[in-house]
Amino acid sequence: MRPKLTDVAEKAGCSPTTVSRVINNHGYISQKTKDKVFAAMRELNYQPNTLARSLQGKQTKMIGMIVPNITNPFFAELVAGVEQTLADDGYRLLLCDADRDSDKEHRYLQMLEANQVDGIITGSHNLGLEEYQRVGLPIVSFDRDLSDKVPIVTSDNYHGGCLATQALIDAGCQDIYFVGNPSKTGNPTTKRFLGYMDTMASAGLPSHTARSAFYESPLAKSMAMRELLQSDRKLDGVFCSDDLTAILLLKQAQRLGIRVPEDLKVIGFDGTKLVQTYLPELATIVQPIGDLAALLVKLLYERIADPDKHLDKNSYVMPVKLLRNQTI
Amino acid sequence: MRPKLTDVAEKAGCSPTTVSRVINNHGYISQKTKDKVFAAMRELNYQPNTLARSLQGKQTKMIGMIVPNITNPFFAELVAGVEQTLADDGYRLLLCDADRDSDKEHRYLQMLEANQVDGIITGSHNLGLEEYQRVGLPIVSFDRDLSDKVPIVTSDNYHGGCLATQALIDAGCQDIYFVGNPSKTGNPTTKRFLGYMDTMASAGLPSHTARSAFYESPLAKSMAMRELLQSDRKLDGVFCSDDLTAILLLKQAQRLGIRVPEDLKVIGFDGTKLVQTYLPELATIVQPIGDLAALLVKLLYERIADPDKHLDKNSYVMPVKLLRNQTI
Repeated sequence: MRPKLTDVAEKAGCSPTTVSRVINNHGYISQKTKDKVFAAMRELNYQPNTLARSLQGKQTKMIGMIVPNITNPFFAELVAGVEQTLADDGYRLLLCDADRDSDKEHRYLQMLEANQVDGIITGSHNLGLEEYQRVGLPIVSFDRDLSDKVPIVTSDNYHGGCLATQALIDAGCQDIYFVGNPSKTGNPTTKRFLGYMDTMASAGLPSHTARSAFYESPLAKSMAMRELLQSDRKLDGVFCSDDLTAILLLKQAQRLGIRVPEDLKVIGFDGTKLVQTYLPELATIVQPIGDLAALLVKLLYERIADPDKHLDKNSYVMPVKLLRNQTI
Repeated sequence: MRPKLTDVAEKAGCSPTTVSRVINNHGYISQKTKDKVFAAMRELNYQPNTLARSLQGKQTKMIGMIVPNITNPFFAELVAGVEQTLADDGYRLLLCDADRDSDKEHRYLQMLEANQVDGIITGSHNLGLEEYQRVGLPIVSFDRDLSDKVPIVTSDNYHGGCLATQALIDAGCQDIYFVGNPSKTGNPTTKRFLGYMDTMASAGLPSHTARSAFYESPLAKSMAMRELLQSDRKLDGVFCSDDLTAILLLKQAQRLGIRVPEDLKVIGFDGTKLVQTYLPELATIVQPIGDLAALLVKLLYERIADPDKHLDKNSYVMPVKLLRNQTI
């Protein structure tokens, strides 16, 4: 049986009125009381009935969006796409730049539980999956498996990894490195890595990896790139799992007098408008950022209309394309 | 005498209850009715009493921020700074990417009038100043003079223009061009241009301008840069009024075989972390983006606490610094 508001009140040790005020964010409630109420809601898996609320005209017309870092051009362009789509429909975007801050991400989920936003789009990488396991909240995920109740939208990272690797092979490379973080579970980079591995194996070529995590500083990444280029390992091609790392690699190659593409061929991943415009020589795999944004919003509207609806399909994979350029 | 809610109702031809519902965004009201009520509020210069509201605990704890383009790294970093400062204080950021859309900007001002946000930070370039002339709304402006009731935060654009020009002169340049849009009133670029003009005049050098507007496409800008470099005008130094335009200029110089800095010296303006990290050779004038963000938020809090308070000081100018690099 579905838990009731009175069950939450009993568990939290407060009145039903207080629970209602927390849920509807009405009047002053101490953070301590809020925490107790949210804990009880979570423990009982209590869900305010969103559909009923929306029929009562209590939609907030606000959507929360959680991104790991708005200053990364990929996320800036994704946010711009989502914001434009929402604005066309009269929705507003609450932006949460969660930069490794799981508390911040957590507070956004609380806002959703408290009916302060109608839904959430999350592209974050912080919280444990269990936080997202609760049923029936209107959440859509970008690029990360959260739970079988949360639709995930992603680019075709595996195919992108294949395309990038094949482009380097076609250009004559034999000793091709993958630069990225292949190990993290639920991370889209993993599929780019798998595409690389399978394509190398099909071509009968040995695979090589240089680890570079998303959250490492650009300086640390630059040093790792320099070390890779200065080592006596054979190396004539590099597939970087993101464009920004590819730019750092190109800088280091330039400083060491390694000619691109003659001595070294480089391809990135992401293909933001910014990088395509200001570094037009970089070969890359282009993610369809505008289409990703539009699909995230469309799926979220469906979850808002009926958060408990069974998902026929959990995962939506959008096509990518190869952009051939001077670096290969 | 200050207009009352009943005056607004009479002017709008509806009941006081309807006006109250519009102001408090409660229940369903048609857009037509909303427009009539807002028009009446504007005509009568009616202000809901924000101070009284905040004492009643009706703060929304949400701040609207209007930027011309979140995909421009400067604004992405400014938004990130504002969002982090607000989050530390329990505020949330509603992001409006107004990209030449004055309707969108207008709707945000309506949200402020309707108590749906506590205040607005605007860095936009669309609306006519008269929209911002109304008294007592908690608004803070970035880089644009809106009205003597709205505090403006800006970098020291004039001094930045002087520093950039003097750096080119010190590096031996004689024929220095300013690339930017010097003519638009209220635009920060104008002061960068004045700094350029005064510094050239002090050095007894002739001034030259190549017009490039903020909103032109990168392709149009690239073509203009190419034309400038290919003309038979004497030219050994360029001060670009923003870093992204400087990058386009460097690309065109590279394609034309013009050596930087030997044949041409280039300096930009903005100094985002992104450009400093991924194009570390570019000389530029660095705006203190984190400090600008913190000051915008601090001044907005003061306006929220008392929107009618007399401003001792309307304009806040933050220092910039010269970053010498390989392009000069």
